[in-house]
Amino acid sequence: MNIIRCGDTLLFRTPPVIAAKAAVGGKKEGEGPLAAAFDELGNDNRFGQSGWEAAEKYLQLRAARLCLQKAQLPEEKVDLALAGDLQAQCTASGYAMRELGVPFAGQFGACSTMAQALGLGAALCAGGGVRNLLAMASSHFCAAERQFRTPLSYGAVRTPTAQWTATAAGCCLLRPEGKGVSVTAATFGRVQDYQIRDINNMGAAMAPAAAATLLRYFADTHSQPQEFDCIYTGDLGQVGSRMLKELLAAEGLLVKNHLDCGCLLFDPETQQVKSGGSGAGCCAAVLCGHILPRLERGSHRRVLFVATGALMSQTTFLQKETIPAVAHLVELGPIRKEES
Amino acid sequence: MNIIRCGDTLLFRTPPVIAAKAAVGGKKEGEGPLAAAFDELGNDNRFGQSGWEAAEKYLQLRAARLCLQKAQLPEEKVDLALAGDLQAQCTASGYAMRELGVPFAGQFGACSTMAQALGLGAALCAGGGVRNLLAMASSHFCAAERQFRTPLSYGAVRTPTAQWTATAAGCCLLRPEGKGVSVTAATFGRVQDYQIRDINNMGAAMAPAAAATLLRYFADTHSQPQEFDCIYTGDLGQVGSRMLKELLAAEGLLVKNHLDCGCLLFDPETQQVKSGGSGAGCCAAVLCGHILPRLERGSHRRVLFVATGALMSQTTFLQKETIPAVAHLVELGPIRKEES
Repeated sequence: MNIIRCGDTLLFRTPPVIAAKAAVGGKKEGEGPLAAAFDELGNDNRFGQSGWEAAEKYLQLRAARLCLQKAQLPEEKVDLALAGDLQAQCTASGYAMRELGVPFAGQFGACSTMAQALGLGAALCAGGGVRNLLAMASSHFCAAERQFRTPLSYGAVRTPTAQWTATAAGCCLLRPEGKGVSVTAATFGRVQDYQIRDINNMGAAMAPAAAATLLRYFADTHSQPQEFDCIYTGDLGQVGSRMLKELLAAEGLLVKNHLDCGCLLFDPETQQVKSGGSGAGCCAAVLCGHILPRLERGSHRRVLFVATGALMSQTTFLQKETIPAVAHLVELGPIRKEES
Repeated sequence: MNIIRCGDTLLFRTPPVIAAKAAVGGKKEGEGPLAAAFDELGNDNRFGQSGWEAAEKYLQLRAARLCLQKAQLPEEKVDLALAGDLQAQCTASGYAMRELGVPFAGQFGACSTMAQALGLGAALCAGGGVRNLLAMASSHFCAAERQFRTPLSYGAVRTPTAQWTATAAGCCLLRPEGKGVSVTAATFGRVQDYQIRDINNMGAAMAPAAAATLLRYFADTHSQPQEFDCIYTGDLGQVGSRMLKELLAAEGLLVKNHLDCGCLLFDPETQQVKSGGSGAGCCAAVLCGHILPRLERGSHRRVLFVATGALMSQTTFLQKETIPAVAHLVELGPIRKEES
């Protein structure tokens, strides 16, 4: 068997590879420190579409097409796409897939979607039967604000713990073998709930999930944080990142090599994003535009990518439910250079 | 390799099995022709919970626990749960998984979720590394009406093409081998859109997706409809079922062994469900309570289970988008009796 289970972690003996990837972003993303990481950036947040929801669909479709273009792979050779987003009923993905026309299984992990899709996709590639799989996720600031928070036109003041939903999409092409960054392991998270009710403090709701999944992965694989060039979390922001370090320190782990995709995407000094970026497209784009190129260049050899998602909705929030969260993890690297 | 790809279809050489299953339903489901198929039925649609959304969470949790109880499997032995529902941000599943505490990857395929979860789950079991996987889906009439259609208290007249969202959940325990109904193949669908805009005619929106996936499966496997004891679709209702037959007939396939889960769950004469039942929980419960027992008893030896999902949301409906749909297929049977 090519897949070995250790606890909650799947280890891939012949690791699948990320053969190509693409990141697409909006206007604000193009004004931030990672502007050069994107394959394409919009001049506004409409991308020539009729509305914000349709603009997010376009972002996802564009990321998929750029990714396939780089791999010189025609759409009809895609065996399966695992895609998700934050819109109710995952419509950004559903409508993007209508245009892409490939077999499609919708994923919902909120902001953890990219790691979930990569983990499931890697297991499907490693298990056989899938040769070309797309893993992708997106988010759109305006579509998310309309759905979850204050109507944009109210111009309400944001709290210091609030995060800014990225207008971005990322797409990876996974293959069972060949050239690319290897996906060597995957850990699927268990839902955590630390009784947070503040919809403007997602970092606090999600940090326990990131800590739980990391602790399981370290226990399952008998590894230590310092063995990795970097541990990237998806979208905890400044507040959640501090909490993650505290939660891990309480378990005796002093993590000095942690970076958060939500803290990387925007400039905290000039871009007024409060605690940082968020949204399923944030860590998906940072992975594709920033992390994977480092693994490809060899400046990183082994990293963890842990994406966290808050699993509430506007309905459960209004019903005063607490906010559960989940975190999925994939271990990435090193690059494999042989041709398939 | 245990998995062979033929076109869009994955064939499992050593097929994974459905080792246990459970179906839970609401009051109306208990008044219908399949009442005896359910493991548990509610006296009202609240199930002792604070609201409809929480009631749906309870349905899913109850189905999972009954399923694990039948398999005498403790929760900590579940490697992964693939679960989904119709609520925005799949909160019925997310909150159920918070209580179940197993590794969880959220699925969104609207009413196709059960077939999607079974297909992905079977591929993960067949590929190695997953020993006990839960595939599950739910829906709740009141939660769905609140989200998608007319507020219940308006008491609006339903159109003849409208379907009735089932208050139900189904859960299957999948294993790579052992005793149970085998999952011998899976086909993941491509999104279809026949430009339907009528939110009260899901059957018309989804029938083309069912036809497309069935035609691909027959072509991929060189099989004919008459080779199966029955072809079950998920929730096309009376209207969609007629359209499916017409679409297949136009391709030269005369299908006489088709039944629709949405037509089986309720009595069209007495239960006033118009075109039939629907919702992710409808075909999930009919599969677990009605179809799988027939395969276990040997009255069916080989069936197709094709679940269809409409991928729109209330937002895309209000934006006057057409309704895309997807259908996923699993081939089931015969029963395997050897112990693992």
